[in-house]
Amino acid sequence: MSDARHSFAIPGPFRLRRGGELPAVELAYETWGRLNEDRDNAVLIFTGMSPSAHAASSPADPAPGWWEEMVGPSRPIDTNRYFVVCVNSLGSCFGSTGPASTNPATGQPYRLDFPVLNLEDVASSGKALLDHLGIDSLYSVVGPSMGGMTSLAFAVMYPGVARSLVLLSCGARSLPFATALRSLQREMIRKDPAWEGGSYPAGAGPIEGMRLARKLGMITYRSAQEWEQRFGRERIASERLTGDGFAMDFEVEAYLEHHAQKFTGQFDANCYLYLSRASDLFDLADHGGSVEAALRRIKTDRVLVIGVTTDFLFPIAQQRELAEGLQAQGRHVSFVELPSIQGHDSFLADMDRFRPVICEFYNGDWQALGARCSAV
Amino acid sequence: MSDARHSFAIPGPFRLRRGGELPAVELAYETWGRLNEDRDNAVLIFTGMSPSAHAASSPADPAPGWWEEMVGPSRPIDTNRYFVVCVNSLGSCFGSTGPASTNPATGQPYRLDFPVLNLEDVASSGKALLDHLGIDSLYSVVGPSMGGMTSLAFAVMYPGVARSLVLLSCGARSLPFATALRSLQREMIRKDPAWEGGSYPAGAGPIEGMRLARKLGMITYRSAQEWEQRFGRERIASERLTGDGFAMDFEVEAYLEHHAQKFTGQFDANCYLYLSRASDLFDLADHGGSVEAALRRIKTDRVLVIGVTTDFLFPIAQQRELAEGLQAQGRHVSFVELPSIQGHDSFLADMDRFRPVICEFYNGDWQALGARCSAV
Repeated sequence: MSDARHSFAIPGPFRLRRGGELPAVELAYETWGRLNEDRDNAVLIFTGMSPSAHAASSPADPAPGWWEEMVGPSRPIDTNRYFVVCVNSLGSCFGSTGPASTNPATGQPYRLDFPVLNLEDVASSGKALLDHLGIDSLYSVVGPSMGGMTSLAFAVMYPGVARSLVLLSCGARSLPFATALRSLQREMIRKDPAWEGGSYPAGAGPIEGMRLARKLGMITYRSAQEWEQRFGRERIASERLTGDGFAMDFEVEAYLEHHAQKFTGQFDANCYLYLSRASDLFDLADHGGSVEAALRRIKTDRVLVIGVTTDFLFPIAQQRELAEGLQAQGRHVSFVELPSIQGHDSFLADMDRFRPVICEFYNGDWQALGARCSAV
Repeated sequence: MSDARHSFAIPGPFRLRRGGELPAVELAYETWGRLNEDRDNAVLIFTGMSPSAHAASSPADPAPGWWEEMVGPSRPIDTNRYFVVCVNSLGSCFGSTGPASTNPATGQPYRLDFPVLNLEDVASSGKALLDHLGIDSLYSVVGPSMGGMTSLAFAVMYPGVARSLVLLSCGARSLPFATALRSLQREMIRKDPAWEGGSYPAGAGPIEGMRLARKLGMITYRSAQEWEQRFGRERIASERLTGDGFAMDFEVEAYLEHHAQKFTGQFDANCYLYLSRASDLFDLADHGGSVEAALRRIKTDRVLVIGVTTDFLFPIAQQRELAEGLQAQGRHVSFVELPSIQGHDSFLADMDRFRPVICEFYNGDWQALGARCSAV
């Protein structure tokens, strides 16, 4: 555990949306900047599926964070002005309670005894953290991808808490295409004999299944255009060929293998299964019967929605749906379509396009931002 | 073996493009219609990766073929007028010699001792079949997907043999995105312990790996738009749920499972690996140093190129590249972009759009066809 990571115990039991409860929940989080006297300058970040709470470096943990260029002094989420809080999602494995945590009832990891997880549970655990920190009003809640859906859930469940909302590369729900891909990733993990029905020993588990799932993730997070520019038909240099003819011919295959190996071992397989399924189960329409009814519950006046035209996991039409729906409810919506070629991962990979948009939104520079916006 | 299937032995040894040779090659094929006196009315069909030679039903085999609505009397590839020949690809497992065939040197299946297969080898085996049938001049060569790339190879390697060329949903090469997906499919199969390094017994093999690979195939062959229309967020009826929470929640997952189970067992895993890799290895630019130089070798004057705007395995830009390149060489090119929502599989699934285009091309109805064409 890094020195920057804090931990907070939610007074239990913690009841989950689809039934079941956890006798105790620990949440890991990091903070940057200072809470002001009015306790109203906090920005809450919900993460995508796999990151930890370490969004950015700090004196206590100088390692670069997953959103290093976005969060910090004079960065778009400016820690000179805001008290920034990033939470490791409930169900994850970087300090927050999840399937890899010890079940106090058995002394063993929860594994598949962990209750079905929904993004609403992730949102409500974040709200519990705010209560613990004595924060009633947020300057903003922000999240990319799964974190965007969690932010949506938060805004619907706790109307009026956040004074602004930033939704990046997400949607009101997962489309069947994205669900099919995630379902296949989960199956790759579950079919690995080393998964052992979820009962693999700590530190072991379905390494092969996780590696395959990560590769499919990498494929779906980026875009065909990017890879065409980056790899073309580049072949692997002959001295790096393994002699196994079916292993690899092309650089794109070596790239996937490299990234898949970096990932596996870091993330617990059961946690991955729970969070992946939570992304599929989320449906904003569950809050009131329709997306429209759910959006009506959001009282946050200022909303920024950013999407990327090459994202095929959460296609741009899904961000447009959110922007139009919120605008129809009278919210002030800024909707920005970015032509990044890095697909779904652009919010991590194309900082040069994302940074100024978020900067202008948080600075209230409506004229500059307006020039970037699409009509809704 | 069905009564409609013919078999032909290529006089050996058959040398493969990347080295290695086969002492004997059997090719399975089917024919429809009659060869005319001038022996110049034949249409040669190269298939996609997984179909057999059974493109259409016939009195000898009334089972519907994989391109039933396209091939037959008064159908677009009109067997009243043309002598239609469909060949099971070299390397496949429906009667043609491939990795599952017996290696005469050992009396055992070739398995991974089969030489590296290229689409040029598939094309040259097709040419050997034409020689056997006494056909020097083809009315047309036609192929979808992998069969389209094989048709391109054929047209480059045997200039002047085909008087027209129909290329459906293919490209001059595989893009890195498609290669990444196919590479992952191959890895799913190879990581299944039942693959046994390719040495699984006949009738057994990596069922789980093939099932996963097929699911990924299904995902990449169709389009997100189609699935959104077809499934939306439809959940599986509770009585069909298995109780395994990670198995399935949504109808799209049940659909994939159903189709994956239909496929596995039909197709030999090693054959799949060889043909899949052949698709990735193909690069038209290998013929002369560039795509342009390769296209210059094609002497076929009439070319029809069809692509689908929702295809992300062979995106429409790849068909445009072929159409523009051939046009630049002075060929008469008709280039049709279809708005089918079934993605790469549209040449099988959206017959109402494909049929009239091919019909007009073969009938020489240039006015009607011209009205459908995009400018190149």
